[in-house]
Amino acid sequence: MEIYMKANITLIPGDGIGPEIIREAKKVLEAVADAYDHEFIFTEIDMGGCSIDKYGVPLTDEAIEIAKKSDAVLLGAVGGDVGNSRWYDVAPNLRPEAGLLKIRKELGLFANLRPATLYPKLVSACPLKEEIAERGFDMVIVRELTGGLYFGERYTKEVDGVKTAVDTLVYNENEIRRVAKVAFDIAMTREKKKVTSVDKANVLDSSRLWRSVVEEVAKEYPEVTLEHMLVDNAAMQLVKEPRQFDVMLTENMFGDILSDEASMIAGSIGMLPSASLGEGSFGLYEPSHGSAPDIAGKNKANPLATILSAAMLLRHSLGLLEEAQRIEDTVEDVLDSNYRTWDLKSPGIKVLKTSQMGDIVSEWL
Amino acid sequence: MEIYMKANITLIPGDGIGPEIIREAKKVLEAVADAYDHEFIFTEIDMGGCSIDKYGVPLTDEAIEIAKKSDAVLLGAVGGDVGNSRWYDVAPNLRPEAGLLKIRKELGLFANLRPATLYPKLVSACPLKEEIAERGFDMVIVRELTGGLYFGERYTKEVDGVKTAVDTLVYNENEIRRVAKVAFDIAMTREKKKVTSVDKANVLDSSRLWRSVVEEVAKEYPEVTLEHMLVDNAAMQLVKEPRQFDVMLTENMFGDILSDEASMIAGSIGMLPSASLGEGSFGLYEPSHGSAPDIAGKNKANPLATILSAAMLLRHSLGLLEEAQRIEDTVEDVLDSNYRTWDLKSPGIKVLKTSQMGDIVSEWL
Ligand SMILES: CC(C)[C@H](C(=O)O)[C@@H](O)C(=O)O
Ligand SMILES: CC(C)[C@H](C(=O)O)[C@@H](O)C(=O)O
Repeated sequence: MEIYMKANITLIPGDGIGPEIIREAKKVLEAVADAYDHEFIFTEIDMGGCSIDKYGVPLTDEAIEIAKKSDAVLLGAVGGDVGNSRWYDVAPNLRPEAGLLKIRKELGLFANLRPATLYPKLVSACPLKEEIAERGFDMVIVRELTGGLYFGERYTKEVDGVKTAVDTLVYNENEIRRVAKVAFDIAMTREKKKVTSVDKANVLDSSRLWRSVVEEVAKEYPEVTLEHMLVDNAAMQLVKEPRQFDVMLTENMFGDILSDEASMIAGSIGMLPSASLGEGSFGLYEPSHGSAPDIAGKNKANPLATILSAAMLLRHSLGLLEEAQRIEDTVEDVLDSNYRTWDLKSPGIKVLKTSQMGDIVSEWL
Repeated sequence: MEIYMKANITLIPGDGIGPEIIREAKKVLEAVADAYDHEFIFTEIDMGGCSIDKYGVPLTDEAIEIAKKSDAVLLGAVGGDVGNSRWYDVAPNLRPEAGLLKIRKELGLFANLRPATLYPKLVSACPLKEEIAERGFDMVIVRELTGGLYFGERYTKEVDGVKTAVDTLVYNENEIRRVAKVAFDIAMTREKKKVTSVDKANVLDSSRLWRSVVEEVAKEYPEVTLEHMLVDNAAMQLVKEPRQFDVMLTENMFGDILSDEASMIAGSIGMLPSASLGEGSFGLYEPSHGSAPDIAGKNKANPLATILSAAMLLRHSLGLLEEAQRIEDTVEDVLDSNYRTWDLKSPGIKVLKTSQMGDIVSEWL
C-alpha cells in the first residue's frame, strides 16, 4: 500500500538557534517527502524577538491565522535570554501571554507531551549516578497546557499603600478529562501501561477535582494502572528512581516544573522533542530546549530534538507512522555510530556541526 | 561568661517514627542541659493521627495554646502513608489545613528554612553522579510558609452539571518583605552571601510583585548578591549544578517542590533538619523527612535530622550558639567514625539503631 500525502506545515524558526535547527529539521522532512513521495508545503511565520522587531508584538494575528490553516506547526525556539531581566515590567505586550501562551490558547493546544528518555548511548550525559542511569528510563510527561494558573484571572491592587497580587488556579472537569484521556491513550500504546497523576490533593481544591476526574477516566481504561503522587514527592522520585515512571500526567504549572526537571535528568536536553496537541490531529511540535542565544549563529546547536519533533509531527498530525519511525531509527543509528554535536561531546566521539548533523540524518534515512 | 537558660520546649512526637526520633532528640537536649547547666522543661502535645484517634481532629486548640506559650516547638513527624488514599474526601477535618497548616498559621511561622547539605562523608548517598556530588554543596532554602496557594480562597462550584475548582494565589508586599529579609539575613551569615530568588515572573502577577519587593529588600543588603531564577529553570539547575546555590528564596508552593527536590539531591534525607520561624525568636523545628510508617516502631529510623533540628532550635529560638554548634560537631564526629543508621548503610560502616545513635551523640557531646 502506498500513501501519498500532501500536507501544509507551518515553520516558526523564532530566535537564537531556532532558525538553524529548523533548517535541519526541514531538510530531514524534505528527505522524507522525497523517499516516500509525499508533498510537504512549508510556510514560515515570525514569532518571538524577530516578530517584535518587525511588528512590535511577539505574534501577530495574521501569523496565527496561517498556523491555524495548516496541518501542523514546527517551532524552533523563541525568546532571548530573559531569565534575569525585567522585560515584563517594561513591556507587558512582550510577555509570553502575547506569544507562546497566546498561540497555545488560540490553537487549542491543551496537551503538552514531553518524552524524557535516557538513551543508552548517552548515559554519560545524565547527571544521575551510574547505578541509577544505567537502568535507563523512558517516560512521557503529559502536561495540561491551556488552564490553571497560566490562564486564570490575575491582578495587582493597592490598598492603603500596600500592593497585593493575585493569580487564580482554575480547572473544570472537561479540561481535566480531555487531557487525562490523552495520557491514558498514550499509556495504552506503551509496554508498562502506567499513568502517574501528579497533584497536590492534600491542599488544593483544583487537585482534588483533578484526582477525582482522573479516576473516572481511568475506569474507561481497565488495562492501565493508575497511581496518584503528590507534586513534592514527584519532584523527589524523579531524581531518586526515574525508572518508576511511564506516563506522568499533571496540570500546567506542576508540569512546567516537573518536565524541565525530567529533561535535565535525562541529561541530553538537546535530544528531547515535544508535542502540543488539541482535539483532532493538529499539533505544534518543538524541541524541549530553549533558544540558547549564547551559541546562536555558530552552527553548533544540536538539531536532533527538532528533528525528533518533526518525527512526532509526522506520527501525530499526519499519521505517517513508518516515516516517523524511520527518522527515529536513523537518529539512533547516527548516535550508535558515535556522531554527536558539541553539547554531547565526550571521549571517542565525532563532533558534527548543526548542518552536518542534519545532512547525515537526511542521507542515512 | 556563663549563661543559665531556663526554657520551655513543646515536643510533638506525632505519628510513625515521630515518637522514636523525638525521644533521641530529647536525650540530646537533656545532655546539653546537663553539660551547660541549663534547664529545659518539656511538654508533650498530640498532633496528627494520634490526636485524631483521641480527639477527632489532628490538632486541638488546647494543644496550640500550649505550643504558643512555650519558647519553641520540636516536632517529629505527622501523618500516615496517605499519598494514595482519598482521606481528604472522606473527612475534610483530617486535611493538613486542620493540622500542619493550622499550626503554621496560628503560630505565625512564615519562614521555613531547609538546609540541603551534601556531607562529604555521605557522597555515596547522593543520587547525582560523582563529578557533581564530589564538589559538594551547601544551600538553605527559605520557603514562605503562610501565604500563596496554601492559604488563598478555594472552592468548587457546579454549573450545568460541570464542576469547576478554584484556588487562589495571593501575596501582599508585607508578606514578601518579611520572608525576603529572613533570607538576606541568613545570607549575611554565610560565606557566599548570595540569594537566588525563585519565581515565575514571566507569567504570574504574584511573582512580579515578589520580584520587585525582593529587589527593594536587596538594596538594604549591599553585600549580598541577588539573582532571580524562573522556577522551571531552578528545578533543572538543582540537578545540574547544585553548587551554584547558597540561599534560595521562594514562595510557598514552589518552595514545597524545590525543597523536597533539594533534599533528595543531598541524598540523605534522614540527615536534613528544618526550622519554621516567625517574628521574634519563637520557632518550630522538625526533620525534613516524613513519618515513614513502614519502619515505625522498629528502632531503625535515623534520628539525626531531628537532633540537628534541635540544634537549630537552640541557635534560633534560645540563642545558644555554642551548644548548637556542639551538637552539629558531634554529629559530624559520629559520621566521621563511620557510625550510621540503617538508611545510610554502605560498605565499611557500623549500623546503629535509633536509640544507639541518640546515645552516642549524647555521650560524645
Ligand atoms: C515561557 C514560559 C511561559 C513557558 C511555560 O512556562 O509554559 C516555558 O517555560 C515552557 O515550558 O514552555
Ligand atoms: C503535608 C503538606 C501540606 C506539607 C506542605 O506541602 O507544606 C508538606 O509537604 C511539607 O512540605 O511540609
